[in-house]
Amino acid sequence: MSKNLTTRAEDYSKWYNELVVKADLAENSAVRGCMVIKPYGYAIWEKMQAELDRMFKETGHQNAYFPLFVPKSLFEAEEKNAEGFAKECAVVTHYRLQTDPDNEGKLRVDPNAKLEEELVVRPTSEAIIWNTYKGWIQSYRDLPILVNQWANVVRWEMRTRLFLRTAEFLWQEGHTAHATKEEAIAETVQMNEVYAQFAENFMAIPVVQGVKTESERFAGAEDTYCIEALMQDGKALQAGTSHFLGQNFAEAFDVKFTNKEGKQDYVWATSWGVSTRLMGALIMTHSDDKGLVLPPNLAPYKVVIVPIYKNEEQFEAIKKVADQITSDLRELNISVKFDGRDTLRPGAKFAQHELQGVPLRIAIGPKDLENETVELARRDTFTKEIVALDRINVVVKDLLEEIQNSLFNKALDFRNSHITEVDTFDEFKAVLESKGGFISAHWDGTIETEQKIKDLTKATIRCIPLENKKEEGKCVFTGNLSTQRVLFAKAY
Amino acid sequence: MSKNLTTRAEDYSKWYNELVVKADLAENSAVRGCMVIKPYGYAIWEKMQAELDRMFKETGHQNAYFPLFVPKSLFEAEEKNAEGFAKECAVVTHYRLQTDPDNEGKLRVDPNAKLEEELVVRPTSEAIIWNTYKGWIQSYRDLPILVNQWANVVRWEMRTRLFLRTAEFLWQEGHTAHATKEEAIAETVQMNEVYAQFAENFMAIPVVQGVKTESERFAGAEDTYCIEALMQDGKALQAGTSHFLGQNFAEAFDVKFTNKEGKQDYVWATSWGVSTRLMGALIMTHSDDKGLVLPPNLAPYKVVIVPIYKNEEQFEAIKKVADQITSDLRELNISVKFDGRDTLRPGAKFAQHELQGVPLRIAIGPKDLENETVELARRDTFTKEIVALDRINVVVKDLLEEIQNSLFNKALDFRNSHITEVDTFDEFKAVLESKGGFISAHWDGTIETEQKIKDLTKATIRCIPLENKKEEGKCVFTGNLSTQRVLFAKAY
Repeated sequence: MSKNLTTRAEDYSKWYNELVVKADLAENSAVRGCMVIKPYGYAIWEKMQAELDRMFKETGHQNAYFPLFVPKSLFEAEEKNAEGFAKECAVVTHYRLQTDPDNEGKLRVDPNAKLEEELVVRPTSEAIIWNTYKGWIQSYRDLPILVNQWANVVRWEMRTRLFLRTAEFLWQEGHTAHATKEEAIAETVQMNEVYAQFAENFMAIPVVQGVKTESERFAGAEDTYCIEALMQDGKALQAGTSHFLGQNFAEAFDVKFTNKEGKQDYVWATSWGVSTRLMGALIMTHSDDKGLVLPPNLAPYKVVIVPIYKNEEQFEAIKKVADQITSDLRELNISVKFDGRDTLRPGAKFAQHELQGVPLRIAIGPKDLENETVELARRDTFTKEIVALDRINVVVKDLLEEIQNSLFNKALDFRNSHITEVDTFDEFKAVLESKGGFISAHWDGTIETEQKIKDLTKATIRCIPLENKKEEGKCVFTGNLSTQRVLFAKAY
Repeated sequence: MSKNLTTRAEDYSKWYNELVVKADLAENSAVRGCMVIKPYGYAIWEKMQAELDRMFKETGHQNAYFPLFVPKSLFEAEEKNAEGFAKECAVVTHYRLQTDPDNEGKLRVDPNAKLEEELVVRPTSEAIIWNTYKGWIQSYRDLPILVNQWANVVRWEMRTRLFLRTAEFLWQEGHTAHATKEEAIAETVQMNEVYAQFAENFMAIPVVQGVKTESERFAGAEDTYCIEALMQDGKALQAGTSHFLGQNFAEAFDVKFTNKEGKQDYVWATSWGVSTRLMGALIMTHSDDKGLVLPPNLAPYKVVIVPIYKNEEQFEAIKKVADQITSDLRELNISVKFDGRDTLRPGAKFAQHELQGVPLRIAIGPKDLENETVELARRDTFTKEIVALDRINVVVKDLLEEIQNSLFNKALDFRNSHITEVDTFDEFKAVLESKGGFISAHWDGTIETEQKIKDLTKATIRCIPLENKKEEGKCVFTGNLSTQRVLFAKAY
C-alpha cells in the first residue's frame, strides 16, 4: 500500500495532513480551500450526525432548511452584531454564464446578468433565519421555536487545513426563539451539555465546559458557552459552541411578540453549532503513527474479517465461517466488513485497516478452521488473542466497550496531566513552551491583559470553566486581584 | 385557524400554493426563488431521505461530499455535455464584503477582492466529481465507484414555485463509475427501479418507468431513464431520472483506467437523482380540498390524539389514557403526537390536523373514558368509528396499512383511467383539452415531429415506457410508420 506515515514526533502537522488523505477521509479539491469528504470519512460524519440528530430531537428540536444565500441588506441589519465575520465570504454578483464571444470554447460571466442586490453565501444563518422568524412569531403561543439546520456554510479562510479550517464546511446550526431570558439561557446551557455528552460518550473525547471571555465571544452573543478539547500536541481545540444571544437579533430584525401579560417584547434567542471540524478533533485525539484510531461508537464498521488462504477451497471454507460471525454480530448491532479482495495480500489489508482505524480485526486461516478459533486484534493497543468461535460474540462485544472506555480514559489521563496550575508569568511561558496543554492561571478580567498575553505567547483564554471553584488570587500577568482561574492554551 | 383553502376545482394552482404554505410545509424567502422548508415539511423530506438512503446503501452505495463551487474552467471542459443548463446559475465573483466608504452603515463588495477565476454554485456536480474521480481511478481494481451525495444545488430559474421549481433545491445525486458499458447500464436501470419502488411503496404514487427521447434527455447522457407520475390536474410530473452517461464525462475529464487485459480505456458512468420536487408530487397526488393527505409511510406522525375536556381533572384522566395508547403504539413503531395545547379548541385542532394530513386522528372525551372507547377518524376518507380501547393497537395498525394501500390504489385508478390511446391528431388534441393525462400515441421517432406537437399542444413525450409492447402503427401527427406507442402529456 502506501508508505509509512510521517510520525507525530517528526512533524505533527504533516502527520495529520498525511493521515487524513491516506486513510481516505478527505482530500483537497480543485476549488481553493474546499475539501472533498471521501466515503470513508463521510461515513464517520454520518455516524456523528445520526447521534447528534437523535439527541437534538430528544430535547425537542425539529430540523428545517433555510436558503443558502443571504441578501447583502440582511447583513447590514445585523452588522453591529456580526461584525466579526460578515466580511470574508463568497459573494454572488451574477446569475448567468455564457460562451465568450471573444474567446472560442471559453465561458464568461454575462455582463448583462448582474444581480440588483448581491447575495452572500451563508457564513452562518442568523440573518436569514431571524428575518424568517419575524413572520412566524406574533404571540407567546408561537414560542418557543426549537429549530436546527444541517447545512453547508462558506467562510473565505485564507489558510485552510482539511476538516480543521476549510472555506466550505458542513455543520448544524440550532436557532431557537424564547419568550423569556431564563428559558433562552437554559437552552444555551442544555445544548452545550448535549455537545459535551456527545463528545465524551461517542467521540471518547473529554471536554471542559466553560464560557468564553468577551473578546472570544461570538459577535452578537451575550454569552458563549463552549466545549474545549485537548489534542495530542498540547494544543486546544474548540469543539462546539452554544450562544445566548439575548435580544440582539430580535432587535436587529424587529422580532417582537405579545407576552402573556399582553405586552410587546423582543424575543430571546440562542444559536449553537458543531461542524466537520469535529472530524479533526476525533483524528487528533486518538490516532497514532500507524494511522487513524476510531472509537467503536463512531466507526463505519467496528470489525473487519480478513481471510488467510492459499486456494479457492480454503477461501470458501473461511468465508462460510466469516458469514456466520457477521450475521451473529449484526444481531448484536455490531457492523462487520468481510475483506475478501483477491487483489491484496493479508499483510497489506492489515496495514490498510490499521491506517483506517477499524477497532477490531479478525483473521481466519486454515489452522483456525481446524481449531475452531479466530485471531482477534485490537487496533488501539495492537494486542492479539486467539478466541474460540463459540465465544466470539461475547468477546467482541466486551472488547468494543472496553476499547471505547479505554480511548476515553487514555485521552482523559492525557488531558488531566496537561492542565497545569501556574502562578507566575515565567512559569506560564515555561509550561506553554515545554509541555503545552491547558494552563490554569489567575487573570484580572480585562481585555487588555488577555490581549497582551496573547501577543506575547500566542495563548488565548479558552474558557472560564463552568465547574470553576472560586479562589482568591493575583493575575498571572498584572498581579491585580482575581477571583478565579481560567484556562489558557494555544489553540487550533 | 386559517380560512378555507381555495378548492382544486376553482384554481388548482392556487390550491397548491395555499396548501403548501397553510400546511406549514414551506414558504418563500427573502431571496428570490429560494424557499424556506418549514419543520413539518422538512420532517416529510427527512422520511423520504431516510428510506432512499437505506435503499441506496442496500444496493452498495456510499455517501460522500463534494464542493459547493465549481470553477468556471471545469464547466468549459464539459460544456459540450452540459450545454443545457450550464448557463443560468449563480456565479461567485468576489470574496469579501466591506463597509461602504461612501455610504454609512451600508456594505459593499470589496472591489479589490475579485476572484481570479469565477466560481459557479453547483447546478449539478458531474464536473467537480469527474474531475475528482480522475485522481481516484487508475485500474479496474478501483472500480466500480458507487457514490451518492445529498446536497443543495442552485439553478437560476425565472419562474419558481414552492418545491416544484426553486432556484435552490435539495437533492441527492448518485455518480457511479464502471469498467464496462453493461455494468453502467445495469446500474442505470437498477437505480430507476429503486426510484420506482420508493415512489410506489412509500409515496403511494404509481409511476411509469421509461426512457426519454433524445430531445428530453439530460445533456451529456446517452440514455435517460425516468419515472413519470400523474397529478390530479392531469399533468405529468417527472419524479426521478437515472442517466447512462456512456464515456462522455470520462472523455471530457480524461478519466482512463487499465482494464483486466492491461489496456487503457475510458470509464463508463451513470448519474441519478431525485429532489425536493418529490414533495410537490406527493402533495399533488393525494391531497384534497381540506388540505394535505399523507401516506402513513411518510407522515411525520401517523396518529394524533386530541383530548376533549371541560376541566383539568378530565384532561388529566384523558391524558393518562392517551399516554398508554402512545406507548403501546410506539412499541409497534407507530409515531403518535398528543395535542394537549390549551390555546386551541378541539374543532380548530381537527382542522389543523386535516390541513396537515395526519393519517389517523384519535379523539378522547369524557364519554369515551366511561365506555373505555375512543373515536378514530381517517384523514383520507373522513370516516369515523368508535373503537374499544383494548382493540386500538390492532385497529390502528391495520388501518394505517389500509390507508397506505388505498391511497396508492386510488392514485393508480386515476392514473390508469387517464392513459388514453389515440390514433388521430384531432383525438390527441381533444383528449388533451378535455381530460388531460397521458396520451398513448404512435410517433414517427423524429425530433421534428416531437417539436411540432409540442409547439401545437404544449404536450411533450414523457417517456417511451419500458414495458411497451411492440405494435405496428402510424404516427399520430405525420402518418409515418411507427413501431410503438409513446406517452405524451403536458408536464410540470
